[in-house]
Amino acid sequence: MGMSTAETLRALLDGPYPETRERVRWWLSRPGNEPADDLPLEEHRARVLEWVKELASEGDTAIGYPVEYGGKDSPGAGVTAFETLAMGDLSLLVKCGVQFGLFGGAILHLGTAKHHARYLHDVGSMALPGCYAMTETGHGSNVQALRTTATYDPETQEFVVHTPDDDARKDYIGNAARDGRMAVVFAQLITGGESRGVHALLVPIRTEEGEVCDGVRIEDCGAKLGLNGVDNGRIWFDHVRIPRENLLDKLAQVHADGTYVSPIENPTRRFFTMLGTLIQGRVSVGGASISASKVALTIAVRRALERRQFGEPGAEQEALLMDYRTHQRRLLLPLAKTYALSFTQNRLVRDVHDVFTDEGAPERQRRELETLAAGTKAIATWHATDTIQACREACGGAGYLRSSRFASLKADTDVFTTFEGDNTVLLQLTAKNLLTDYRDSFNDLNPIGMVQFVAGQALSVLTERTALRKVADTVLPGRDDDADLLAHKTQLDLFRWRHEHLLTAAARRLKGGIDNGKDPFAVLVDTQDHVLEVGRSWVDLVILESFAEAAKGNELLSKLCTLYALSVLEAERGYYQEHGRLSAARSKAVVKAVNTLCGELRPHVRELVDAFGVPETALGDARVVADEQERVPA
Amino acid sequence: MGMSTAETLRALLDGPYPETRERVRWWLSRPGNEPADDLPLEEHRARVLEWVKELASEGDTAIGYPVEYGGKDSPGAGVTAFETLAMGDLSLLVKCGVQFGLFGGAILHLGTAKHHARYLHDVGSMALPGCYAMTETGHGSNVQALRTTATYDPETQEFVVHTPDDDARKDYIGNAARDGRMAVVFAQLITGGESRGVHALLVPIRTEEGEVCDGVRIEDCGAKLGLNGVDNGRIWFDHVRIPRENLLDKLAQVHADGTYVSPIENPTRRFFTMLGTLIQGRVSVGGASISASKVALTIAVRRALERRQFGEPGAEQEALLMDYRTHQRRLLLPLAKTYALSFTQNRLVRDVHDVFTDEGAPERQRRELETLAAGTKAIATWHATDTIQACREACGGAGYLRSSRFASLKADTDVFTTFEGDNTVLLQLTAKNLLTDYRDSFNDLNPIGMVQFVAGQALSVLTERTALRKVADTVLPGRDDDADLLAHKTQLDLFRWRHEHLLTAAARRLKGGIDNGKDPFAVLVDTQDHVLEVGRSWVDLVILESFAEAAKGNELLSKLCTLYALSVLEAERGYYQEHGRLSAARSKAVVKAVNTLCGELRPHVRELVDAFGVPETALGDARVVADEQERVPA
Repeated sequence: MGMSTAETLRALLDGPYPETRERVRWWLSRPGNEPADDLPLEEHRARVLEWVKELASEGDTAIGYPVEYGGKDSPGAGVTAFETLAMGDLSLLVKCGVQFGLFGGAILHLGTAKHHARYLHDVGSMALPGCYAMTETGHGSNVQALRTTATYDPETQEFVVHTPDDDARKDYIGNAARDGRMAVVFAQLITGGESRGVHALLVPIRTEEGEVCDGVRIEDCGAKLGLNGVDNGRIWFDHVRIPRENLLDKLAQVHADGTYVSPIENPTRRFFTMLGTLIQGRVSVGGASISASKVALTIAVRRALERRQFGEPGAEQEALLMDYRTHQRRLLLPLAKTYALSFTQNRLVRDVHDVFTDEGAPERQRRELETLAAGTKAIATWHATDTIQACREACGGAGYLRSSRFASLKADTDVFTTFEGDNTVLLQLTAKNLLTDYRDSFNDLNPIGMVQFVAGQALSVLTERTALRKVADTVLPGRDDDADLLAHKTQLDLFRWRHEHLLTAAARRLKGGIDNGKDPFAVLVDTQDHVLEVGRSWVDLVILESFAEAAKGNELLSKLCTLYALSVLEAERGYYQEHGRLSAARSKAVVKAVNTLCGELRPHVRELVDAFGVPETALGDARVVADEQERVPA
Repeated sequence: MGMSTAETLRALLDGPYPETRERVRWWLSRPGNEPADDLPLEEHRARVLEWVKELASEGDTAIGYPVEYGGKDSPGAGVTAFETLAMGDLSLLVKCGVQFGLFGGAILHLGTAKHHARYLHDVGSMALPGCYAMTETGHGSNVQALRTTATYDPETQEFVVHTPDDDARKDYIGNAARDGRMAVVFAQLITGGESRGVHALLVPIRTEEGEVCDGVRIEDCGAKLGLNGVDNGRIWFDHVRIPRENLLDKLAQVHADGTYVSPIENPTRRFFTMLGTLIQGRVSVGGASISASKVALTIAVRRALERRQFGEPGAEQEALLMDYRTHQRRLLLPLAKTYALSFTQNRLVRDVHDVFTDEGAPERQRRELETLAAGTKAIATWHATDTIQACREACGGAGYLRSSRFASLKADTDVFTTFEGDNTVLLQLTAKNLLTDYRDSFNDLNPIGMVQFVAGQALSVLTERTALRKVADTVLPGRDDDADLLAHKTQLDLFRWRHEHLLTAAARRLKGGIDNGKDPFAVLVDTQDHVLEVGRSWVDLVILESFAEAAKGNELLSKLCTLYALSVLEAERGYYQEHGRLSAARSKAVVKAVNTLCGELRPHVRELVDAFGVPETALGDARVVADEQERVPA
């Protein structure tokens, strides 16, 4: 009789690369591949390295690389594999991300044929473990201000890589403390006495025997809050000399005599083109957060369908936790948002694949992808933090045992909100791209520049520019108290209105502040919370669009989509009322509808989490082994 | 010239027992007493046990006990010492809480002179390490349904303590896995073939040599999410015989022949009188959460006053994180609430001291204390989770290193939201007491009973009853758009209105549901989110009252109090608008005022955290040692 509900939902959730997901699920389910949540630091590091080598030897880690270097030419499948791997040990995930995504990705995207031929195969097979040495102690978000130098010496045709002081040491670098033998080092390039901005160079840091190279100093970052299977470290360079060909020279070349040439004339544009290689990392971290949320929700829902506490006096059994409204709210709202984010992530993966397999993809398409990747990464990683916490609490004391997996889920995902771009900075970047319609200085992370750019535009231009979606006023008339709150069209209209109102108002405030003679930093400070809402409201809208699209023709999904939409409206109902878009009565109706939907979705909750397809091995104490399947309610 | 601002604030924050706080700060500052954030499990347990013994030998752990048993007869100072200890290693805190608060507290409050004389001195000196064996695998929140039995055998004048099955094993019991030699066991007492409800009995579990006693089985709970310096375990009893005098018999006695007598006739009332001993535990956990929040805020604020990132193009220095509005919102709002909670906690400590030093304290006073303790515990522990998370993120990658202290702060406080009463259950208890004006079945945690009780009352009685604070309607006229939002009176009126409106509406809904023929569980489910808001809104109000009272005559505190008040109004502005208590314009003004206040308080932020008086040893990487004091901006 065809597929079960859970199977139907899983096919939708799994998106464009279902066989990739199934292969990773299979690998995670093999004995010995369970998360290593309880190993001492060095043993955990060793175990993770073994796993990485095993995955590499099976060809699972270079999926996004060109075929000639052992890959499968499929960036989309590569990101999908990574995302699914996040259901298991997250140290393994991050170690893979560092090696194949960041280190290998930099060589692939910033290097040229000679680098690909020489290194890429060894990177993909883990024969050459490497680092992505971008962040410095003094500069994390503001990458453009890094202070490590790479000075060209035409005498020897070498670059001299140097750490001027401790503030400029490379910090929190994955693979550095133990395994890495080479690093992609981001440094201020100096030729002919002139600084050319941040460039990437390949610098050996350990010999094949594992000895630290001359002039290099490495320190172990030691124990971290989580991800202790990844060996993060600090690196200093003391006038380390590397040959000229170690410059990753796709975007800029240095001739033997030191002449600097680049196909991209504008140095800021060059810089942000370089940073474009980070996009896959951001998409991957967002996807990993969604997977981790799925694991947490599966564990908590299973428990809520088993655990009884209190209930009708004299009843034969106590009531299931899942039957309490507060418990439904705690779990079903994040469940709905996890679905919503999954469909958004599938869209992002398709976009990544398209952009990275088409050299001729238009600039605007790349910028839109970057914008959505930044915003979704912020929303998805905060969502994981909130969801895992809610699930832990929903499991009470049992959730506090390490064997429940919440310890590692919480600790390992915690850094996602601040690495691959701090969430606050990323939401500002999203807002900035929307406010400037992608026309300002490429992808400059400095929010001050955005203030100045917006202020420099005529208001009429801004207003036109900000009507991004060209929604005619007729589509959004005055408040419509009769529109059906349960219809996706109504929900989308309300989401769209909120974003466009925030966007237009922010543009006016930015411009007004400058016109009134305030300095740009003061204007930014005055409006910063508003600017973040511009980014957030846009991501909310895109997420709802993705969910509504995916839910078409599926009644259960459509209801879950409405729960997502109304839970956002509920949270934002203060704003909607302030602007006359929801009457008091409609606002109360939203709250009531969220409760009603929780009750209606309650009977489907087991199917809804089963559809995530989390391997049993990843569920800790909630794991069901074959012979005790009947213990868990169906 | 008198005290600095920070000193003035500290005197206010430190409350009624400043010398107790200073002594604990001194102890935490001694070399060797830094948090042991990075020890392997068994070493951490051993270190914590040594610390407990050291504190006990110095007389610091029995402060709340009677003088004749080595104490100081000061429950208030005892809770204060505990609260302050929470700035250090939280495993030490919880081990102390188990030994001196729960185990010793049960003997003190449920036992009689013979128990006090025989055990209390040894408990206070840690000569007799013990457990509080209440929770079972199957029953955490619903304690009344515990299934361990203690059957009286008149032949031998013994109780037979027995664990009927694995669901009834004692679980997550602190001190059980390694150190405990005796346990206060909560069990269904059976005499003459009749069950008498849950009672507490002293059961030896290990010999003086540390051998597990016959008939007792103990299993280590193993590694936990946090608090790994505490040895939690599971205990099974196989027909373990203990002498009759081991019943803690203050509230009920069993004669030699098995006759059961109790001064409290109603068994439910007896049960909840027994649970009243938990109050100090809840107050202590709430207080500990506030201390942990202070540690996190001190670390994050220090970093925000040092760390620079981005800023005006061409400016000499980048801008301090603390100067960004988003960063101010992330840190100053929780800072304001931490102050608010501190003053509420001081009030609670005074109430605890009064009630526990006056046998004749009226029943209503006890019930009100229980209600506030339950609600504040929930709000303060959730606040700690949110605040520590916000502070971790505000510190970026540096906050992810274990040496920053966020790893242990996050992990160790995580369980606070669900132990000593799950927060959701506690907020329901608070709401229930308010809805029934303390008149229903004592302190039954089962929310269904509340529905039935409320439904049984005439609506006029409810409405009168729920007007707890006897606020005449004239005090709360229709919306007053002119009242000054910055005045505490306006803020208090709005908070009070919200609570009373929620309370009255909840009573109507509960009664209406039953009157319409719904069964009580369905009525509870329909209204449960509303009922939780009844509890939350009342705690919010009491917190604001405490802060406004403490802030009198201090301009800086008064401004911080307003920030707390307006941040709550901002979060709840959807509700206020729905009910016509805030116009759209006023609602927008609240948001704006929060931003303005952030800017105004920014220059004082260092003083505001210095006033917490967190020992430098508790600040991890943010610690300032004498010779580098100048590194940190004043």
